[in-house]
Amino acid sequence: MAFNKRTKIREVLNLTPENQIIILMGWVRTRRSNKNVTFISLNDGSCIQNYQIVADPTVIDEDILRKANTGASIKVSGRLVASQGSGQQTELNAESVEILGEADPESYPIQPKKHSLEFLRENAHLRIRTSTFSAVMRVRHHLAYSIHEYFHQKGFFYIHTPIITASDAEGAGEMFRVSVLDPKNPPLKEDGSVDFKQDFFERETNLTVSGQLEGELAALALSEIYTFGPTFRAENSNTTRHLAEFWMIEPEMAFYDAEDNQDLAEDFLKYVISSALRHCKEDLMFLDQRAAEEEKTKKAELRNELSLLERLTFVTENKFERITYTEAWEILKNSAPNKKKKFAFPIEEWGTDLQSEHERYLVEKHFKKPVIISDYPKAIKSFYMKQNEDGKTVAAMDILFPGIGEIVGGSQREENLEKLAQRMEELNISREEMWWYLDTRRFGTAPHAGFGLGFERLVLFVTGMGNIRDVIPFPRTPGNAEF
Amino acid sequence: MAFNKRTKIREVLNLTPENQIIILMGWVRTRRSNKNVTFISLNDGSCIQNYQIVADPTVIDEDILRKANTGASIKVSGRLVASQGSGQQTELNAESVEILGEADPESYPIQPKKHSLEFLRENAHLRIRTSTFSAVMRVRHHLAYSIHEYFHQKGFFYIHTPIITASDAEGAGEMFRVSVLDPKNPPLKEDGSVDFKQDFFERETNLTVSGQLEGELAALALSEIYTFGPTFRAENSNTTRHLAEFWMIEPEMAFYDAEDNQDLAEDFLKYVISSALRHCKEDLMFLDQRAAEEEKTKKAELRNELSLLERLTFVTENKFERITYTEAWEILKNSAPNKKKKFAFPIEEWGTDLQSEHERYLVEKHFKKPVIISDYPKAIKSFYMKQNEDGKTVAAMDILFPGIGEIVGGSQREENLEKLAQRMEELNISREEMWWYLDTRRFGTAPHAGFGLGFERLVLFVTGMGNIRDVIPFPRTPGNAEF
Repeated sequence: MAFNKRTKIREVLNLTPENQIIILMGWVRTRRSNKNVTFISLNDGSCIQNYQIVADPTVIDEDILRKANTGASIKVSGRLVASQGSGQQTELNAESVEILGEADPESYPIQPKKHSLEFLRENAHLRIRTSTFSAVMRVRHHLAYSIHEYFHQKGFFYIHTPIITASDAEGAGEMFRVSVLDPKNPPLKEDGSVDFKQDFFERETNLTVSGQLEGELAALALSEIYTFGPTFRAENSNTTRHLAEFWMIEPEMAFYDAEDNQDLAEDFLKYVISSALRHCKEDLMFLDQRAAEEEKTKKAELRNELSLLERLTFVTENKFERITYTEAWEILKNSAPNKKKKFAFPIEEWGTDLQSEHERYLVEKHFKKPVIISDYPKAIKSFYMKQNEDGKTVAAMDILFPGIGEIVGGSQREENLEKLAQRMEELNISREEMWWYLDTRRFGTAPHAGFGLGFERLVLFVTGMGNIRDVIPFPRTPGNAEF
Repeated sequence: MAFNKRTKIREVLNLTPENQIIILMGWVRTRRSNKNVTFISLNDGSCIQNYQIVADPTVIDEDILRKANTGASIKVSGRLVASQGSGQQTELNAESVEILGEADPESYPIQPKKHSLEFLRENAHLRIRTSTFSAVMRVRHHLAYSIHEYFHQKGFFYIHTPIITASDAEGAGEMFRVSVLDPKNPPLKEDGSVDFKQDFFERETNLTVSGQLEGELAALALSEIYTFGPTFRAENSNTTRHLAEFWMIEPEMAFYDAEDNQDLAEDFLKYVISSALRHCKEDLMFLDQRAAEEEKTKKAELRNELSLLERLTFVTENKFERITYTEAWEILKNSAPNKKKKFAFPIEEWGTDLQSEHERYLVEKHFKKPVIISDYPKAIKSFYMKQNEDGKTVAAMDILFPGIGEIVGGSQREENLEKLAQRMEELNISREEMWWYLDTRRFGTAPHAGFGLGFERLVLFVTGMGNIRDVIPFPRTPGNAEF
């Protein structure tokens, strides 16, 4: 065998037809025949395009062609010629066709018709073979790659922070316990509580909710680092925006202040979205079309004013609006929906957290562009955020995107040992357990900042899909851990 | 503030001195003074080199200079001039020095002297500030980046396979349970067993031991994919080669046979090691020196014949030896150590697994180069490996490296539904639970292959470190989940 000698469809599309022999392998999308000729539309996952194969029944055995049903895997050897029809420049005149794997049309779930996203989610092992999901996965790949490329070019170092952690100080949400103890009869201590001393790590451990704290340790040694790893939330929220297992990118930079942090985050988001627009043009055109059709099924007032491609270009070409929480609060307090009592959560007192209806108003109605909100009230933000001199706010920032809401959250970190320790005491966070985190402020502390980007939120925004379960290969949500 | 206006030391090293103003920030490695001048050696993590700052006590307040102890974080503004001394082309004549964060010499653990690796492991939050660990982390970054670069250039797509999984069919080792049930009083079913129906995912779930099975699903749609994610083993092995949490790279390719798989793995390993040699020259020279000093402490017979840099070049420049298990078994059976009964596990019957003493003999003594062993007895390999026509062996391959042993394990996968299902039955693997895996053989199956690379094994090999706990920022091993 010499399987690796095949040519990918992505490459064939760029070849000049010179009657040369080409070998293709892939999965049949559709087959149609008339009495003179059979057309097979083949896809190999390398790109969104299917490739047209022309089989003459006097050359290729009809028994073989009959088995080339939708979903079958085939190997075709043929000559590359200029295409007779429209749609594609070249086509392959088959000289031999081999069925590598059949797909019974009676039982193969992915037929050439519109399947619901719910049905495809139940067949997540096969949905990657559809145009929509293969496009999403290719875009996802390019986004991931451009994230590494961006930070690498800037001299950041990729750091793998731990997945299993004994620290729960981040307080970002409910955690999954990781254990090897007998689930039914765990060893107990004298006081009747579970004796985690006998567990694998000799203490209670959980799945991480964020790599930030460990990322800070690395930034305070290597200057500029980023993480890109899985994070977890054991929250029972069945929404289109939440996953129990998702991937986060968390850059952390020594010698950055809050403004540097905002500059980096804006530049970064523009870079990766531009990169997708440049490298995933065909996939995004397909997804743009798909999103446009979805829009038609929505009520007029819920429709996007901009198409998917317009939304992406819009983000890359506009300077993000930068306002403080206090400015946002004033805009919202005086806004028409607030005065007309249209918000489910009316804006009154300074200091309450913004809800997604408020964020959407700011981004989609008021500014009509991405917004960076900074300097939030310290009571609604995490202990590690740098306390501003006003005594009331912290140097936090959230970046809000149209349709998505918060896509990035970050802050300058509190680098002052006393202030940090005091805030931890106020919030009842154990300074003994966090000795290592405090040590970085005790020894050679430096101003530093960072942010977190939920990768699936980014993929959701760039692909225009409506449900976060459709932008990760095998989603983990309450009750779902299949595949 | 405008912190981001600093220049990194890596960049300063390439500047021509023109008396220009440069701002550096970093951590003091050492300080020495005579009555006329103070020299500060500064490191900012951007590269292995420390940068020399010259401070004239008539220009910089001596109180400030006194605080610039080892570990302190400082900001220096000064003029870039040609260096008076040897060792470095330029130096910075300080015009102002600001202490960003002090480091008390009495309590800061990382002093300018040799610390044991054990001590540094207990201070993993600070060890990244040392030359050795910052070099390891930079090399680790470059290896990770070049892995993405390699696959991206070849048209592979990066796939995130699930971390939390309900499948345990891979059988690669003991697993960690993931749960939100009350650890002390879990809900029970009528038969007295734990009612995992009430757990978060409504079933028992664990941390993944491999992304391969899900990777196969994606490869049988996108043709060529790779994973790069954390994997877990709940094995109580306290060795220098094992971690409970480690990162794996698992490419999986449709339309590849066993030979294609070997070709790819060899090309891939050579690419990433060459890339490290090219891009991490200074770090690797430092680590080469460090490894050479370590060697001196070993007994003569345990010393490496080649230096670290020689070992790396050796791998990139030699064609890997390719032999079958049966050939390896014959070589070993007739080897001097076997005949002299020097092996702890004597080689007798065909069919037993090779131990690391055997692998080392083949790689380090017999062939003296990397070895790919293929076609292992099926009884010692996994159910999903393609059964060879001899009925006795499978199309598996292991790649063995000097000093490391197995660095890659892979195989062509069994694409035949009947053979796969029968092997699962023989091994008592539930076909009902694995319906989705079998579906890929039921519908449009295709020859495919893949392999797994333990990332830390690769970092261990390339950095020449002796313990796998020293090549990951925060190692997870039995009893250790600190930081």
